[in-house]
Parts: sequence; C-alpha cells; structure tokens
Amino acid sequence: AILASIRAMLTAPLGEAQTATARFGQNPPPLRGKHVLITAGPTHEPIDPVRYIANRSSGKQGFAIAGALAALGAEVTLVAGPVTLATPPGVRRVNVETAREMADAVEAALPADAAVMVAAVADWRAEATGQKIKKDKGGLEALPLVENPDILAGLAKSSKRPALVIGFAAETEKVVEHAKAKLARKGCDWIVANDVSGDVMGGARNRIHIVSAAGVEDWPDMEKDAVARRLAQRIADELTD
Amino acid sequence: AILASIRAMLTAPLGEAQTATARFGQNPPPLRGKHVLITAGPTHEPIDPVRYIANRSSGKQGFAIAGALAALGAEVTLVAGPVTLATPPGVRRVNVETAREMADAVEAALPADAAVMVAAVADWRAEATGQKIKKDKGGLEALPLVENPDILAGLAKSSKRPALVIGFAAETEKVVEHAKAKLARKGCDWIVANDVSGDVMGGARNRIHIVSAAGVEDWPDMEKDAVARRLAQRIADELTD
Repeated sequence: AILASIRAMLTAPLGEAQTATARFGQNPPPLRGKHVLITAGPTHEPIDPVRYIANRSSGKQGFAIAGALAALGAEVTLVAGPVTLATPPGVRRVNVETAREMADAVEAALPADAAVMVAAVADWRAEATGQKIKKDKGGLEALPLVENPDILAGLAKSSKRPALVIGFAAETEKVVEHAKAKLARKGCDWIVANDVSGDVMGGARNRIHIVSAAGVEDWPDMEKDAVARRLAQRIADELTD
Repeated sequence: AILASIRAMLTAPLGEAQTATARFGQNPPPLRGKHVLITAGPTHEPIDPVRYIANRSSGKQGFAIAGALAALGAEVTLVAGPVTLATPPGVRRVNVETAREMADAVEAALPADAAVMVAAVADWRAEATGQKIKKDKGGLEALPLVENPDILAGLAKSSKRPALVIGFAAETEKVVEHAKAKLARKGCDWIVANDVSGDVMGGARNRIHIVSAAGVEDWPDMEKDAVARRLAQRIADELTD
C-alpha cells in the first residue's frame, strides 16, 4: 500500500504534488479540479529603451496565495510581473513585464473557476520611444501618459468571467471606503483591501479587510503566508458551497 | 611563516584582504594608498508612495570595477543604487535610492584620487506626493518632471575634484560622437562609452570606447569582468604615472 501510494504521488500531475492531503490533512483536496488564475508582482512600463515606470509590489503575497491554492489541490496559473521569486510547487507560471502583456496572458489563461488579481498593475504607461531620451536635446518637462487596460474590470465583464473574481487594493488611507468603491467600480465579487499606510509594500505581514456584497471581514495583522492560507480556504469554501 | 602570513591576512584592513599580490602578482599593489569612488546601479525616483521611475542598469559593470580596483590595492567606496548584488571583497558600500541621495553620498565620500561614475542616474524625478495617486480622481495626463542634480558635472567642477574623473555613457546610436560631446559638457577626463544598441543593459558583456582629450580607444567586445580588470589597470597606470 505504501509503495502504491508513493507510485501514485510520483505519477500524479504536478498540481497534485503538494495537496491538502499532505499539508492540511483534507482528503480529497477541496480545490481538486478547479482552475484558479492569479496575477502577482508589479508591471514595468517602458519610457524608452533604458527607463521604465515601476512600483513597489514585491509579488510575495500573490506568490504565497498561488502556493496555498495549489496546496488545496487547485490547478493554478500564476501570471507574474518582473520579480525574482521562486515559483511555488505545482503552479504554472507565465512571466510578463507590462500591463498589456499581463492583460493578454490573463485572457489566454481563461476559462478559470476563480481569479485572484493581486498584481499591482500600472494604471498608466508612457508612450515608448525607440531611442533613449537625451537630456541635451531638451529632455522632457512632463512625461505623456496613456491609460493602461483595466485587467480586473475587463475580466469581471468578460463573457468568460470566472464565477469568483477577486481584486486587491493597496491603500494608504480610508482603506475600507476605497475598497467598497473599487468593488462597485470594477464589478468584482471581493476586494481584498490591504492597509499599507504602515510599512508600504514589500514587508512580511499584511493587514487585510475582505470587502464584498455580504459586508466587510476585518482580519488581524498576519504573516503573508497566513493571509494566503486563510484566503485560499475562503476561496475553497466559496467554490465548493 | 605560514601561520604569520595567515595571521597577517586575518588582521589586515579589509581593503587589503584581496590585493593584487594575491590575484595578479603585482607587488606592491599599484593602487595601494589611493581612494577611488565609484557609483553603480540605477536610481529609483518615487512618483508616489508605491510608484517610481527606474532604469535597466543592473549594477554589474560598476560592481565589477569596484572589485577590480580593490584587487589592485585601492581603498574603494562604492555608492550603490537599489540592486541586490553582493558587495565585492574589500569594498566599502553605501546604499542609496534616489539621485539626490547618490549626490549627497558622493559628496560625503570625498576626497578621492579618482572617481568612476558608472551609475545610471535618473536625469529627472517626479514631484513625489504623500498619498497614492488615484485613477478614479482623474489620475494624470502627464507626469510633471524636475531635473535631478548632475552628479558627474558637479563632481568635475567641485573644489574637491578628484585628479581623475571618469563618466560612463550608455548609448544606442552615434556612440563615440555622443561620448565626445558628453566629455566636453561634463568636464570630466574620460568617458567610458558603452554601445548598448545590441542587447541594452543587464547582459554579461560590454563593447567599450574610452574617449578622452588624448583620443579614442576602441576595446573589443569583452565580458564585464574583463572590462573591469582592464579599466582598473588603466586607472592604476594613470594615477601612478
């Protein structure tokens, strides 16, 4: 029986290599057969061949959620902006750089049962030039910006809309109020609002509020890994009700 | 004798821990007693608490030069923008994020016998705001830019000007022509011009032209470590003539 069990593990699809059976003792894993799409990390928007606009998203929270969902048995597609984090076991990773590349990768990954949009997508991009902008030729007084596609809102109104669409919001003030407005504006099911007024992004912990039509859940300050496991379980509960 | 030698290594100042004696067999090391200041890496210029303007400088070439100079016996101060590279042995590192922080760190590191300004310093910064810029409040049509201090030109006309001031130029076109103009404009002694029309920054190799009042030296395509060793030796020849 042990040999058969080992043989089954070795021949199982990658997504089942670390299942809830092993890590949380749930059998069968609650998200077996479910496809969850996650975005994580920043985007980089080129200004010219050497300069770009970036943001301070570390990708840690999104990667942790991807790993936690895989651990619950989900088939996970992780669309990752430019970060050097290791891919969690059992997760299919697609690397992108810009918001437009991320939008394309999200579209290509559908259909999915749930989508968790954690990436800090640049709202604007600069019109990229082929040559480096030279300071001695007058340079720039202001950088012309163009609005990027809204990946979350686009997904929420897509004909291939996942049953559960979750957005993230990093806020420095009026966290829940802004999250409620974002929930309505984007047409998603939950906003996971992250209060970054303390240490901004990149730290190890997050203080989370889950905002949905049902109300607001305030979670205590937790390690990002603990946030990821709790959120993965909440998603499992929602998808398997 | 071996024990005494080991004891001497263990108690030697950090800058002499890896001298040319050990690595290149020159005795005494040609840059012993010389202080060389290096900048390396990109700068990050905040737009708001989460966004910033960055550039693709990897810092690899500057870090390699710092290491090569220390290996020739120099006391090296490396003012490094935000990169995750390891500090070369025997090098004193000062971490900075913005161009203004880099300018302050360069000023604070003087006097120096030579300065090698490899960092890709942002020419412009955005006026940072205390709060995150919100898309739903109209966002931005263009990002207002302010010119940053010119660290290389400032150093070249400083009352504490090092005897040898070296600038770097990453160019995508008219490489030598642009470098000659930069040499005159900045008031430095050499421009190390790097042709990035091929693979842009971040690769392992560089194609270098040394532009000075004496003329132009064209170096073959070389590994960044080889560029660093050759440049360190050129600096040693110049300072010890």
